[in-house]
Amino acid sequence: MTRTPEGSPAPDEVTAVCCAGAGTIGAGWAAYFLARGFRVKAWDPSPEAEAKLRRLIDAAWPALTELGLHEDASREGLSFHTDLREALEGVQFVQESAPEVLQLKQQLLARLDAAADPGIVIGSSTSGYSMTEMALNAERPERFVVGHPFNPPYLIPLVEVVGGERTSAEAVQWAADFYERIGKSVITMDREVPGFIANRLQEALWREALHMVDNGEATVEQIDRSITEGPGLRWPFQGPMLTFHLAGGEGGMAHMLDHFGPSLKSPWTRLDAPELTERLRDDVVDGCTVEDARPVTELMQERDRGIIALRRMIEGMRRGPS
Amino acid sequence: MTRTPEGSPAPDEVTAVCCAGAGTIGAGWAAYFLARGFRVKAWDPSPEAEAKLRRLIDAAWPALTELGLHEDASREGLSFHTDLREALEGVQFVQESAPEVLQLKQQLLARLDAAADPGIVIGSSTSGYSMTEMALNAERPERFVVGHPFNPPYLIPLVEVVGGERTSAEAVQWAADFYERIGKSVITMDREVPGFIANRLQEALWREALHMVDNGEATVEQIDRSITEGPGLRWPFQGPMLTFHLAGGEGGMAHMLDHFGPSLKSPWTRLDAPELTERLRDDVVDGCTVEDARPVTELMQERDRGIIALRRMIEGMRRGPS
Repeated sequence: MTRTPEGSPAPDEVTAVCCAGAGTIGAGWAAYFLARGFRVKAWDPSPEAEAKLRRLIDAAWPALTELGLHEDASREGLSFHTDLREALEGVQFVQESAPEVLQLKQQLLARLDAAADPGIVIGSSTSGYSMTEMALNAERPERFVVGHPFNPPYLIPLVEVVGGERTSAEAVQWAADFYERIGKSVITMDREVPGFIANRLQEALWREALHMVDNGEATVEQIDRSITEGPGLRWPFQGPMLTFHLAGGEGGMAHMLDHFGPSLKSPWTRLDAPELTERLRDDVVDGCTVEDARPVTELMQERDRGIIALRRMIEGMRRGPS
Repeated sequence: MTRTPEGSPAPDEVTAVCCAGAGTIGAGWAAYFLARGFRVKAWDPSPEAEAKLRRLIDAAWPALTELGLHEDASREGLSFHTDLREALEGVQFVQESAPEVLQLKQQLLARLDAAADPGIVIGSSTSGYSMTEMALNAERPERFVVGHPFNPPYLIPLVEVVGGERTSAEAVQWAADFYERIGKSVITMDREVPGFIANRLQEALWREALHMVDNGEATVEQIDRSITEGPGLRWPFQGPMLTFHLAGGEGGMAHMLDHFGPSLKSPWTRLDAPELTERLRDDVVDGCTVEDARPVTELMQERDRGIIALRRMIEGMRRGPS
């Protein structure tokens, strides 16, 4: 299915990856790529970055081993470079994870573009900038794609993939295919939205939390416990939409929206609610069925099994390291 | 420690509870109280509610059995009543879970107040109304307390406890003590905030999600997967604040706020960010230490162990019911 951007190897032909930027996220990617059997050439302008990078990879390795290493996986596959050209030599993919400063990203992407093999795709870990603005100074913007991971990238499966206005559809498809092949859970977006999907959602929650602390309405500890002992016990299995689908009881999301729709106007957050039009209502109701068409009663059983297993697991963890 | 409101039994002397309202939440409470060894008198104005109530309790029972029943636990301890006076006879606590309609709540609370033993505490499952407005017509507002559970109340530990302006401090303390004794994780708030804590947070996220669907920026399935495969894998262990504490790397929340503070101004959600004042910054940074003073590196190890165990558990669930 994947059309290969001109001159680039197929996603399954990648053997070496450059991690450009070796902070927490870049190092996490490096650990993951090594565990998946790639040679990793890490670049960071600061020579001190190497020690921290190796420390993080060592710390991540037991977890990666437990999840299952690729047969070619080895920490020996890592090399560290302060010279960008050297770090790009012989790689078939680049994952950029520089600090989240737009100008810095723009400069680095232009340098990567000039130095990397013209055909290869370059992914960026940016957590919110659009590729359109980041690739402003690149000669070949068509090969630049956002591949936004979640911390730690070596354990959280999600990668959000989206191109900029000048990115080619082939490059977006190539990146999505590559990330999937290495075991990531990919969401490909068809348009640029600041913060993508997961960050928008988690930022809304984070800002509401900051408001509560700011107004003395809740402490940091209360905020965290309200999630870990509350909705956080459902979210690893069923996202926020399915959660409300189940809150509607046997009538599901349709019952929930028709019944509790008016409470959207309640002052429950500082975030204004959208108008609950007929169209929005139907989109949400239909979306739940598209996502999981099983009856709500069956989803409830699954949720219950999940929460029990999760609570047991957490109790086990609290008794001591496994 | 607990001072008993005048005439009421101590929290450990409760043997029978009235569940006023037997919908999804009321029935979930009934199942939980039965599993904890109480006699439960369920009231609902609709005679049809009984069959659904018993169905829900039966469905919840295997989960409750697996988590461990009280030695006196029995489904035989349930009786169903359409007469409110009858349902209140001989109980030492009332959990009200009527539909979320303010006027209906006001009327029911006044009726409960008139019919229940004057000394006993009455808790409400409301998910957002303040007790001040709900107990408007009650003769003894001092005994009315919000005890807000999360669905399903028989599995999710969180209960948010808060009084109204006329609620006595003793009643708030009594309710918190009672819920804790029966195994709940209680957050006692010292002021009324619409939606309490957890709902405010989850509503912010839910509204952002609705905006995204409304604007065609994401599908329902993408929204859910962005959580279940992303931040949802951290939230059962570490809430949103500790999550960002770890995002700051070894420097923790202080590094995170000092570094990424300006990105609060990014258009990452429709929710305006509060001004990141020095005071707010310090409150958040100190709050993390109050919550968990261990070094970030240790918290990271715990997070990694948790995510691995969780991912394994979810894989096991997907292979088939346990």
